[in-house]
Amino acid sequence: MPLLVMKFGGTSVANLDRIRRAAKRVGVEVAKGYDVIVIVSAMSGKTNELVGWVNETSPLYDAREYDAVVSSGEIVTAGLMALTLQEMDVPARSWQGWQVPLKTNSAHSQARIDEIGTDAINAKFGEGMRVAVVAGFQGISPEGRVTTLGRGGSDTTAVAFAAAFGAERCDIYTDVDGVYTTDPRICDKARKLDKIAYEEMLELASLGAKVLQTRSVELAMRYKVKLRVLSSFEEQSDEAGTLVCDEEEIMESNVVNGVAYSRDEAKLTCLSVADRPGIAATIFTCLSDAGVNVDMIVQNISEDGRTDMTFSCPTDQVKRAEVALNGFKEKGELNFAELVADTGVAKVSVVGIGMRSQSGVAAKMFRVLSDEGVNIKVITTSEIKISVLIDRKYMELAVQALHDAFELDKAG
Amino acid sequence: MPLLVMKFGGTSVANLDRIRRAAKRVGVEVAKGYDVIVIVSAMSGKTNELVGWVNETSPLYDAREYDAVVSSGEIVTAGLMALTLQEMDVPARSWQGWQVPLKTNSAHSQARIDEIGTDAINAKFGEGMRVAVVAGFQGISPEGRVTTLGRGGSDTTAVAFAAAFGAERCDIYTDVDGVYTTDPRICDKARKLDKIAYEEMLELASLGAKVLQTRSVELAMRYKVKLRVLSSFEEQSDEAGTLVCDEEEIMESNVVNGVAYSRDEAKLTCLSVADRPGIAATIFTCLSDAGVNVDMIVQNISEDGRTDMTFSCPTDQVKRAEVALNGFKEKGELNFAELVADTGVAKVSVVGIGMRSQSGVAAKMFRVLSDEGVNIKVITTSEIKISVLIDRKYMELAVQALHDAFELDKAG
Repeated sequence: MPLLVMKFGGTSVANLDRIRRAAKRVGVEVAKGYDVIVIVSAMSGKTNELVGWVNETSPLYDAREYDAVVSSGEIVTAGLMALTLQEMDVPARSWQGWQVPLKTNSAHSQARIDEIGTDAINAKFGEGMRVAVVAGFQGISPEGRVTTLGRGGSDTTAVAFAAAFGAERCDIYTDVDGVYTTDPRICDKARKLDKIAYEEMLELASLGAKVLQTRSVELAMRYKVKLRVLSSFEEQSDEAGTLVCDEEEIMESNVVNGVAYSRDEAKLTCLSVADRPGIAATIFTCLSDAGVNVDMIVQNISEDGRTDMTFSCPTDQVKRAEVALNGFKEKGELNFAELVADTGVAKVSVVGIGMRSQSGVAAKMFRVLSDEGVNIKVITTSEIKISVLIDRKYMELAVQALHDAFELDKAG
Repeated sequence: MPLLVMKFGGTSVANLDRIRRAAKRVGVEVAKGYDVIVIVSAMSGKTNELVGWVNETSPLYDAREYDAVVSSGEIVTAGLMALTLQEMDVPARSWQGWQVPLKTNSAHSQARIDEIGTDAINAKFGEGMRVAVVAGFQGISPEGRVTTLGRGGSDTTAVAFAAAFGAERCDIYTDVDGVYTTDPRICDKARKLDKIAYEEMLELASLGAKVLQTRSVELAMRYKVKLRVLSSFEEQSDEAGTLVCDEEEIMESNVVNGVAYSRDEAKLTCLSVADRPGIAATIFTCLSDAGVNVDMIVQNISEDGRTDMTFSCPTDQVKRAEVALNGFKEKGELNFAELVADTGVAKVSVVGIGMRSQSGVAAKMFRVLSDEGVNIKVITTSEIKISVLIDRKYMELAVQALHDAFELDKAG
């Protein structure tokens, strides 16, 4: 039988009524003749509650225990979803990550998927089960401990299942009805895109557009998984939402297709670092080992053999970064005068495949921000994106001005 | 190193402060030189919330999904307890039932323990771990699915670990400071017992004294596990609480040592059942297969080849019993006129090893109730206990009158 993967996020399974509603959507696909693998998140708020408890108990927690605790929310939803489907006479059962098994490496709290076992679930499909409900976000390490894939890891779980089982499509049900040119909450001219290229989606996701997790888009791109983002709160046709696909499938496109932002950024600067070969490697290996997700990096011009090294990371990792770098300093492995943190910044980016063939996008972006009186603190660019770090108070203004300037409210 | 098992119930781990308090108690035993296996329940209220969701989703639920959902609460506490101990510099890690593994049969929602693997945990003790925190109440079936041991199964988990690992003692920390002659909430003359025999504790537990789960006492009796019940809310000496032990260790004892009650009982009667050999077997096999825990059974005198069959079960299993029996009736496997349920009854019992050698206890009990105007609906007796089913509204009155009459406020 043809197979679909359907993923329901936290708000789509926030309570028993919403679980029923999601189960009905699954029932529609089963009635069409699909076997379905449903990936569920924790009921909204649950994971935050669990993470809060862990942080309060142990600020620098053992990530193996963190994983054991926070993975429990998805287990609850999976069981309740299976029961709801059974009540609708749809043969269903739940699976926890270790039962599938979804095998990962041992990088607790941000594990990577090594392999998904398909035998057990396929055997049950063979026995007449129509829906396998899988707890998202979790797997099992080579040591037999529970791992999690990082926040939003349920999207990644869904795409990985779609690839492993050769699913016809992977539908991501969420609380928005598709991918927008920017966040409609801060720009009322935001427009829904019918299609978006994997690479654009990848940049938007990594830049904080919270519709899809970066890794899920990477995986979808690598395995050519047709990915559809759509709302679980509206009646849906087969053409609803936004299809994330190959750029060849998109006929025409604007130069810029999206403006993204990330509110919770912090800028850290190591002042007066001894400027010698390998120093950058030392700093960023230290941060990487401490589990800090460094984003932008800037090195000042060297003066008297000393330099300033600036980088950005999520605000909630600032403490971790400080502990790690000051620890290295105390051990004499790193020599810098002071570590300065600015937690009042935000990142704004413009993204578009069209940039590859069109010049002047960066200049236009900087001009727009300058005209609004917004000072740029850090710049990074890639083939299809330009990002700037600015004071957080100007974030919304910057997004709106860029959306207007690049005419994103008009279809390409 | 000598080993202790310490079990903390739901109220003892109700929030992060209480988990810290419990962890400190564990730390005291570790400082004395013990390796410790800690068994934890879910934070109080959590299991009820999960059970409520399951019941609302599917009144006649698939017990395999029920188990997957309700076992998640203990996982959370185990992880948080391990983190708390780590913060106190006590080497600790958490274990879920399937990781130990605690192997059970496949009787989901009331599984029985087949075997506890000791190798993995002992290996970690050998590496310097001092505390293994184990999620109580859960195990793994031969099919690889999560099972639960029934409500209160964390006590059973604790005793089973004490037996499997040859622990010196099994301390059950709870919200009361020991075992009382009756429930102090409904009888202010209730007196704490310093020691109680396994068999008396067994009867009291099975009769609804909620201090310990029946099966945990059975297990403790079979494997001679020294079991201590004590409060997690008071500073404790080594002699605190109540020791559950062999009757030989108890010097003197009253004839009656406890008055127990069970509030949520229901009385069901199959009216006009065809009275033929095997009919009782048919009825109670049907109920057993449906997972109904039948307690008392009474059969009326047969008349014209028909009889009435009365039994009691917990009120929350009445629907299940009705569905099962009416289903059998429709299939023609059972012939009765009507099934009548009375959900307004309670059970009151007196318990004492002294009854074995002293007669007249039953007569005295019935006289006391009669003097208070309490009508007895059903009677059952065992070697060391007498139980009656009465209208629920007389329950507290009956308990107090019996406690007075048998002078339980005075030490034996």
